[in-house]
Amino acid sequence: MKIILNQTNSVIGDIKGNKEKIISGYKDALKDGAELVIFPELALCGYPPLDLVEKKEFRDLVNEVANEIASMTSSVGLIFGSITEDYEDIIGTGVYNSALLCFDGKIQFIQNKTLLPNYDVFDEVRYFEPAKSVSVFEYKGTKLGISICEDIWNDADYWKKRRYPLDPIQSLIDQDAELLINISASPYAYGKRMERFEMLSTLAKIDNVTLVYCCCAGAQTDLIFDGASMCFDNKGDLLRLGKSFSEDTIIFDTEKKYEPIAAIEKSFSEEVLSALIFGLRDYALKTGFKKALIGLSGGIDSALVTYIAVEAFGKDNVHVVMMPSKYSSDGSITDSEMLIKNLEISSDLVSVQPVFDSILNRLEEPFEGTNQDVTEENIQSRIRGIYLMAFSNKFGYLLCTTGNKSEIAVGYATLYGDMAGALAIIGDIYKTQVYEICNFINKKKEIIPQNIIDKAPSAELRPDQKDQDSLPPYEQLDRVLKMYLEEQKELKEIIEIEKDEEMVKKTLRLIDLNEFKRKQGAPVLRVSTKAFGYGRRFPIVNGWRKNL
Amino acid sequence: MKIILNQTNSVIGDIKGNKEKIISGYKDALKDGAELVIFPELALCGYPPLDLVEKKEFRDLVNEVANEIASMTSSVGLIFGSITEDYEDIIGTGVYNSALLCFDGKIQFIQNKTLLPNYDVFDEVRYFEPAKSVSVFEYKGTKLGISICEDIWNDADYWKKRRYPLDPIQSLIDQDAELLINISASPYAYGKRMERFEMLSTLAKIDNVTLVYCCCAGAQTDLIFDGASMCFDNKGDLLRLGKSFSEDTIIFDTEKKYEPIAAIEKSFSEEVLSALIFGLRDYALKTGFKKALIGLSGGIDSALVTYIAVEAFGKDNVHVVMMPSKYSSDGSITDSEMLIKNLEISSDLVSVQPVFDSILNRLEEPFEGTNQDVTEENIQSRIRGIYLMAFSNKFGYLLCTTGNKSEIAVGYATLYGDMAGALAIIGDIYKTQVYEICNFINKKKEIIPQNIIDKAPSAELRPDQKDQDSLPPYEQLDRVLKMYLEEQKELKEIIEIEKDEEMVKKTLRLIDLNEFKRKQGAPVLRVSTKAFGYGRRFPIVNGWRKNL
Repeated sequence: MKIILNQTNSVIGDIKGNKEKIISGYKDALKDGAELVIFPELALCGYPPLDLVEKKEFRDLVNEVANEIASMTSSVGLIFGSITEDYEDIIGTGVYNSALLCFDGKIQFIQNKTLLPNYDVFDEVRYFEPAKSVSVFEYKGTKLGISICEDIWNDADYWKKRRYPLDPIQSLIDQDAELLINISASPYAYGKRMERFEMLSTLAKIDNVTLVYCCCAGAQTDLIFDGASMCFDNKGDLLRLGKSFSEDTIIFDTEKKYEPIAAIEKSFSEEVLSALIFGLRDYALKTGFKKALIGLSGGIDSALVTYIAVEAFGKDNVHVVMMPSKYSSDGSITDSEMLIKNLEISSDLVSVQPVFDSILNRLEEPFEGTNQDVTEENIQSRIRGIYLMAFSNKFGYLLCTTGNKSEIAVGYATLYGDMAGALAIIGDIYKTQVYEICNFINKKKEIIPQNIIDKAPSAELRPDQKDQDSLPPYEQLDRVLKMYLEEQKELKEIIEIEKDEEMVKKTLRLIDLNEFKRKQGAPVLRVSTKAFGYGRRFPIVNGWRKNL
Repeated sequence: MKIILNQTNSVIGDIKGNKEKIISGYKDALKDGAELVIFPELALCGYPPLDLVEKKEFRDLVNEVANEIASMTSSVGLIFGSITEDYEDIIGTGVYNSALLCFDGKIQFIQNKTLLPNYDVFDEVRYFEPAKSVSVFEYKGTKLGISICEDIWNDADYWKKRRYPLDPIQSLIDQDAELLINISASPYAYGKRMERFEMLSTLAKIDNVTLVYCCCAGAQTDLIFDGASMCFDNKGDLLRLGKSFSEDTIIFDTEKKYEPIAAIEKSFSEEVLSALIFGLRDYALKTGFKKALIGLSGGIDSALVTYIAVEAFGKDNVHVVMMPSKYSSDGSITDSEMLIKNLEISSDLVSVQPVFDSILNRLEEPFEGTNQDVTEENIQSRIRGIYLMAFSNKFGYLLCTTGNKSEIAVGYATLYGDMAGALAIIGDIYKTQVYEICNFINKKKEIIPQNIIDKAPSAELRPDQKDQDSLPPYEQLDRVLKMYLEEQKELKEIIEIEKDEEMVKKTLRLIDLNEFKRKQGAPVLRVSTKAFGYGRRFPIVNGWRKNL
């Protein structure tokens, strides 16, 4: 059977736009001789649709358009993800996350999703009911076993610890499914691709069945869906692999011979850099921004974000603003200018000092008798925020924030200052990873000036300030953060590894204490298994550290 | 049986502090001759504990302390909410939201929660597994039917549309429960109290059973738990009612005669005002703030927030800053001064103009050839944000934001400007309700100057600006907002009611478009059934309105 997978990039909520994608993809596939055409999970409404699902007008339009799409089908099967509703259900939402198989002008078969993920960034139990049954469908003489994303992530043989008692894939296998089809919306994280490959490959092999996995490719604010759809034979060999971070059309002929593909994952720097560029570009495309703006401090974070913006928008569409104060080093300007030259982008230079002086002047009386402290540091950062937002408002730039994951974790950032902006491009990248990625970028040619990489990190908000005055060395800090945030290790365990109780306690306390800042931070492009944002939910009012 | 209900205010995560509350409450109850002592849902760890539940160190401490509490019990039963864990569960989280009945030094009986709410502000499926069974427990000759919050909200007789197929209360009744005990953490919304009363009263009556409902009383960032615990006899009469917005101890002797209580709910203004004062005060108490700060514009929103802050902190602990620009009316100062005098609070006056001029000066060159627009308006608002944050940073004030629900809905607010602050006090109050509440406050005596109430609302960011230049009249706007946000009405239905397609479309579009601002807004004290924040989740990248 000649199967064509369309790993499309839907816009959440844009039913009519997404419909056009499905119809034109289907028509193109017919021309290419497809016998079965597949689109990802919830391709018609975009994933995750969140509370839009609670709107009847939304569900009704999805339903109407799904039928409209079905009405246009020939005898060639079309599978796409959509929302269906059982109006006879008197208990629960009555709403399902479904795969629709259409041909001959009709929806011929619906398989609802059985396993509804409700952890990390997922909230599907909020919206959907689980499938009441799982069935194979015989299509052109082949028994199709259709499932949706999470359905395939609960194999009793593969997982030591399972989330759900049911195994819908086993149920399909028990019904003699010959071709497993999984439509998916699987958010990217570094390492996830290899995990998917290993799990799916094992499944195909153990169950001795051909397996087709079709995932969407697009960024939805903070979530990046990387595509990379996969087709396996019944020995578990990967025969076809879709592009990463791009829409793609994959032709898979189950009768044809293919060379197995071995290389699934690239290096951390290469892959994550692609993810961030894609995430930023797609956010801009979907929100209508054509140009990006970055506040260039002379530090490594803003340099990396500027590089990413240039890759995402093109050099003619990136503008940077340098905003030195009297605490800024000479290098903050000369290094920035070198980067601007290397990237061939436009820039402005606006001094913070006169405005800072004017504010201090106004506050002299009310602040009489007090000492300089973090207040004055924050004022400088917030003046920069005002400048950048003014440029953004005046010229329609998308303001990219430049905070990294290490800073955001411990609150080493100014709310409404350097935290101002629409999207936190490297908010899921630890400081040490920022260095790693910059070195990767410079491999062939020095694009990010070596000076920027070599100098000691500093916020330059008071004389001779260095990050390391208030924080542990980044190597150590990042190790602790990674153990705590991603590896779910806890206080005692981390202390045992680091042998520095005070530092570990202080770090975890800072993470907890700064929840209020993150609550008001820009959405963070997610590239790890645990990013700040929707997938990590901690109370602002939180007495937990008091116990320790 | 003499039952003592403790509607306590737990601090989320502060296990040791919460333990002390439970133990001292239990001991006091013993002195008062209690035969059964009851505390609310998750009283030991606070509700909602969110992702703290995913931490093993957290669960282990909860478990250890729960046993410690049990070990201190005499023969008098103690029921409190806690987290339990089934280590033999190999599928799912193995973690339960439980009611523990302890006496004679041990946990004697555990009833896990069956119905796990996963809508609006609730995410319980993220953390907990549902109870595997429901049982009565015979205690001192009485069959107790213990349930937890949501368990009691799914009665097949009462609800036309049910969320869950199971009815744990019916199961308890079927097992001849004589006394129903529901421990709860039910977040406040205006109208919710009456709803609880009617549902519980009906249940007690239909099932012919005594019913005791014990709810926590405390604010957890945005969520306000109002307490107001209730005891019903088997005729559905309400015999005992706990205080609202306050911890309380309620003695209920099932043998004693009480006069039935009829008055459950106060007027909107009176009740919601109490809720907001309580919410602000408790946030400050739990985060350690002793003083509040408000930017006083001369408008009605900041006047109301200042009044609330004075009620919450006392007049000696509230400071306001007036920050006029050249677009400010004379009234902005004179009216503010009158309010300051009426409330007897301290104030500062800092001019925005010199700083505004200094910024415009710096931006003259990069902005050459452009016209004045919203950029310049935002700059003024953001300078005010800098001032206020500087006062907050310097003196440790809790900065209260003053935006109302109508403004937040349509994005009539400046990110990092007037949106700056720790908590949005009236972010769940429509503009028309702001007037209503101010008039209520002034009933006995003019506290909020009549001028402030009478003048046309204005942001005063450009000459002769009025809110109504860019927005529909607030009466109309608020009607549309309420239908859309709270009543789940949708476009077509609202157009039919309002007979103004353009206005309705524009309003709903503004709501959708401004999700990015709300994402970065301060947490909103929730007093309606649908507040902005955790309980309302919409995508920032959203093409839905394109369809309409």
